[in-house]
Amino acid sequence: MQARDIAIHIPTVTVNDPVAQAVRVMAVSRLPGLVVVDDRSRPWTVLPGTQVLRLAVPGSYQEDPALVRAIDEDHADRFWLELADRTVGDCAPRQPTKPVTVRSDATLLEVAALMARQHTPLVAVVDDAGVLVGAITLERLITSLAVFGADE
Amino acid sequence: MQARDIAIHIPTVTVNDPVAQAVRVMAVSRLPGLVVVDDRSRPWTVLPGTQVLRLAVPGSYQEDPALVRAIDEDHADRFWLELADRTVGDCAPRQPTKPVTVRSDATLLEVAALMARQHTPLVAVVDDAGVLVGAITLERLITSLAVFGADE
Repeated sequence: MQARDIAIHIPTVTVNDPVAQAVRVMAVSRLPGLVVVDDRSRPWTVLPGTQVLRLAVPGSYQEDPALVRAIDEDHADRFWLELADRTVGDCAPRQPTKPVTVRSDATLLEVAALMARQHTPLVAVVDDAGVLVGAITLERLITSLAVFGADE
Repeated sequence: MQARDIAIHIPTVTVNDPVAQAVRVMAVSRLPGLVVVDDRSRPWTVLPGTQVLRLAVPGSYQEDPALVRAIDEDHADRFWLELADRTVGDCAPRQPTKPVTVRSDATLLEVAALMARQHTPLVAVVDDAGVLVGAITLERLITSLAVFGADE
């Protein structure tokens, strides 16, 4: 099998979308991450779910466990409302990591090794022009591999 | 809300379980990772899904994209059968990272900040003796937060 055989269509976001919408897209579509695309549908970055969540955690809380422990339960439940209308671009790192992509003809081993090495449960599949044609989730990859394991 | 309010019961594995079984447990239960427990039900490590997958990728392929590209499609589909009966303990790092855990009374902000900082979509919830009492997935956390967002 090749990447194109197990790729699925997923909703994407851009740097101009609000962070709250990005989190909602991920939750509604039950995705383990998000592909952020530019205005020509090329991946700008691929965010693992934990890093989409990170966009929603105010900066002052991100690296300070003692401060976070001091926040009472009521406020802690509502932390992500502090973001209001901030966008993905506002909250993402200035220098995003190179998007994690594979070509349509990549093997499942290539996809697996890439996910393991880059710690990302979502990989974007792109065509020769770098345009997004689909995505592969960790769950989809494992389910596809299991098909082969079951035969032997 | 506190960690105990959104924690779910999840199947666990031990270092003596075969890697193939660990991957299967994760897939069947649709978990974003696994908690590896010791013989007293205390978390030994918490593995994000990509690092469970990593256990199944033979070491020679893990850091060598050029080698991986050279493997033909048929063999690539079956890479994980090479593991045969190797166990989680055989394939895990010798010095596993400290398990990512929270107490039952942790706030959702504490859980979110921890997931974001540690890049793990799964967090173990432990009691005062360090015994596993449940787990929180990224999806469960986001869904719980969304309840509050929808009200305002």
